[in-house]
Amino acid sequence: MRKKDSHLDAFIVAHQPQFEEMLAQMVELPSVSSDPAHAGDVRKTADLAVQFLQNFGASANIVPTQGYPAVSGGWTVGNRYPTVTIYNHLDVQPANEPEWTHAPFTFHKNGHQYLGRGTTDDKGPALTALLAARYAMECGIPLNIRFLWELEEEIGSPHFPEVVKQHNLVPPSDSVLVSDTIWVARNKPALPCGLRGLAAAQLTLRTGKMDVHSGLTGGVARNPLAELCAVAHACLDAKTGRVKIPGFYDHIIHPSLNEMRDFLASGFQVNRFKHAFKLRSLRTEDRKDLIKRIWTAPTFEIHGLAGGYTGAGVKTIVPAWGELKVSMRLVPNQRADRIFTLLKQFVRQVNPDVHVKSQGKLEPFQGVTCGPYLEALRRSVQAGFGKPPVLVREGGSIGAVTVLHQAWKVPILFMGLSLPEHGYHAPNEFFDWGQAAGGIRTFVQYFRELAGNQPQTANSTAC
Amino acid sequence: MRKKDSHLDAFIVAHQPQFEEMLAQMVELPSVSSDPAHAGDVRKTADLAVQFLQNFGASANIVPTQGYPAVSGGWTVGNRYPTVTIYNHLDVQPANEPEWTHAPFTFHKNGHQYLGRGTTDDKGPALTALLAARYAMECGIPLNIRFLWELEEEIGSPHFPEVVKQHNLVPPSDSVLVSDTIWVARNKPALPCGLRGLAAAQLTLRTGKMDVHSGLTGGVARNPLAELCAVAHACLDAKTGRVKIPGFYDHIIHPSLNEMRDFLASGFQVNRFKHAFKLRSLRTEDRKDLIKRIWTAPTFEIHGLAGGYTGAGVKTIVPAWGELKVSMRLVPNQRADRIFTLLKQFVRQVNPDVHVKSQGKLEPFQGVTCGPYLEALRRSVQAGFGKPPVLVREGGSIGAVTVLHQAWKVPILFMGLSLPEHGYHAPNEFFDWGQAAGGIRTFVQYFRELAGNQPQTANSTAC
Repeated sequence: MRKKDSHLDAFIVAHQPQFEEMLAQMVELPSVSSDPAHAGDVRKTADLAVQFLQNFGASANIVPTQGYPAVSGGWTVGNRYPTVTIYNHLDVQPANEPEWTHAPFTFHKNGHQYLGRGTTDDKGPALTALLAARYAMECGIPLNIRFLWELEEEIGSPHFPEVVKQHNLVPPSDSVLVSDTIWVARNKPALPCGLRGLAAAQLTLRTGKMDVHSGLTGGVARNPLAELCAVAHACLDAKTGRVKIPGFYDHIIHPSLNEMRDFLASGFQVNRFKHAFKLRSLRTEDRKDLIKRIWTAPTFEIHGLAGGYTGAGVKTIVPAWGELKVSMRLVPNQRADRIFTLLKQFVRQVNPDVHVKSQGKLEPFQGVTCGPYLEALRRSVQAGFGKPPVLVREGGSIGAVTVLHQAWKVPILFMGLSLPEHGYHAPNEFFDWGQAAGGIRTFVQYFRELAGNQPQTANSTAC
Repeated sequence: MRKKDSHLDAFIVAHQPQFEEMLAQMVELPSVSSDPAHAGDVRKTADLAVQFLQNFGASANIVPTQGYPAVSGGWTVGNRYPTVTIYNHLDVQPANEPEWTHAPFTFHKNGHQYLGRGTTDDKGPALTALLAARYAMECGIPLNIRFLWELEEEIGSPHFPEVVKQHNLVPPSDSVLVSDTIWVARNKPALPCGLRGLAAAQLTLRTGKMDVHSGLTGGVARNPLAELCAVAHACLDAKTGRVKIPGFYDHIIHPSLNEMRDFLASGFQVNRFKHAFKLRSLRTEDRKDLIKRIWTAPTFEIHGLAGGYTGAGVKTIVPAWGELKVSMRLVPNQRADRIFTLLKQFVRQVNPDVHVKSQGKLEPFQGVTCGPYLEALRRSVQAGFGKPPVLVREGGSIGAVTVLHQAWKVPILFMGLSLPEHGYHAPNEFFDWGQAAGGIRTFVQYFRELAGNQPQTANSTAC
């Protein structure tokens, strides 16, 4: 059970309409960072974010880069107080899936559910933290709260190093809280203490100038799609998921007994996972094995094979070229550069004509698994949702995290608000008011914890 | 050297403008049988063909089927004379390749070259035969000449059995000449005496309801594209081209020593082949091996892998489904049904979740390799082009041939006019007047040979 806090609860109830209005404005800007056609929308989203911060009385700046800008802002109540930075991103995935039941970039309210691309990933959590900070400021909690909102997270944060270099606009803080992760289940708040990394690549093979007639040339003309399938098969045992690239599993830090105990105590359920992601069958249904695979083991995925004919029916050609799109999720202490090199060397052995090009690298991240920040966060989640959080790992990757860690060398913690059923990167993505309300309570409590025994500022009487 | 025939030569020269005008009208109807959007154009092409036959004084009929109609027509000079049927098709491949330098369905004349989709495959050869028949009729050659023009060849002749059943519209003849094949090279006329067959299939695998986030599910979610790549690899050694489906090579009739001698004497050149199809490298450059592979050996091709993400860059999803598009070229005496069953059984063993669906079956065909028809055709080509033809096999498939053979049980011979550089199924397809003019001479001589020592009809004085 969570402790009642009627002043905060009243604030939350009073601000639901404002939250919904702001989220609607955000969702209706299709800030798809991977699609150049939406460049204008991405930039408008940054401007809107600055506006939101300023409307709340915070300072706010666009942080320019060679790519899309970031947004930095917040409240400085005093240099003698600690500073926390909340990280979210405001760019979103494409929404071209045919399964959308409503226009993905039109905000749709269904009771306390908010549908639309970006609602849960990650605009809703960003606005949740903003409301919490607004409350903290009203109450005079003696803490400097800053926001760092990225607009290139969904494309692997290519210009985030430029962002953190601009110290005047993005001053380092004492700790960072990242709010872009997913719970094990509703009522099972999760604090991830590690992220997987990523090494993505395109494998291209051209064997002719044009597609040719498979009757006239078949048997002699090389088939680039067949050769790329063979390369895929050489890299991966598709049935078990085992990666066959030599050296791939070297240097991996396996989870400690303590970590595994936490993971197994997380309440993770195989059937719930299967249902949330609408998967027909899995490589394993063994709970422990499954948890290890998604949180602590690296992968090799095939995302697509371009080239040839993919329309209706069959077109009897020998294709001129093919392009296999792959990526590998990485875990501590694999290094993205090394893994990409291993892939490149191995593919050269298997088929020297295949050209391997990197499509982005993100390092895996091992976060804090104990200590005062984590304990404060645990207590905050208990206060916010009335449930103790479980320690997990996150199977996804957030490029900004390793960049921030290297630049600032401060503790980075994770407290996301999304649920598996919210549909990260999936059609009919949604967020819900229950998670937002609990999120506001959690952030407020965390701000109080960080402020600790610091003296309250002048206008602190109300809280 | 060919014998001069000044009356015929004058006819040919005089009719070049008419040939070009008719070919232009044909090309500018985009009779793409595989694309339902062009259904109207396919039917208009049939009407135009009837018109052409009637303009030349022949009888002509639409032969209706459940699919597209065929066109049947010709001249009956007398029941006591032999009858030959010339087969061509008037439907064409799609022309969506970006490499086209002119609009593919606009007839473009460049000197004596005629550019446009369908010029060489197979509208140009059809009109060549028509002009030759017109000449034969003017000269009173005592032979009944019929035409059978299909409009579903490029989609595997699904309704051709219905066509040949309509005996009143499509009367059987004593022999058939198919004009839809390709020479070894310019100046190397080729008479194919066999065709490869085809068994095409779609292999589909669905493992989820929607594409999901590869960070959140990767390692546990099955990857249907990776599993289909593994199936492809199980079916085919992509490097050598060897098909690994058990039993696949059973029952194959290898070419006789005589056939191989003919093939090797055909003037086939590896470099010319490579250049004509713009292939960067081949599975073999050994001439004998190459000839055996394209003319006498079966294949397994991958035409495309649908599913997942094939746009720019990489999208880190685990796809929900994949569809592998494959086909196998077959040789005598493989049976398309049996081969499809072998594929289906083998795929079930490798991955029982993959669904295998047939996308068409064409039997391989072994034609005549000796006898009076072939000798007559050899002499005709010598007369028409001044070069002796070589006996080869055709690597492609013509669905109508086995249907006609089973229905009529008469000799079926092949005399195509296309050159490798004409670009069958490729961008910038063209035909040329040299092949048309030589073709008219060849057909006329063949008609004379078939008429043999029969008495000339009334108006025969001029020839």
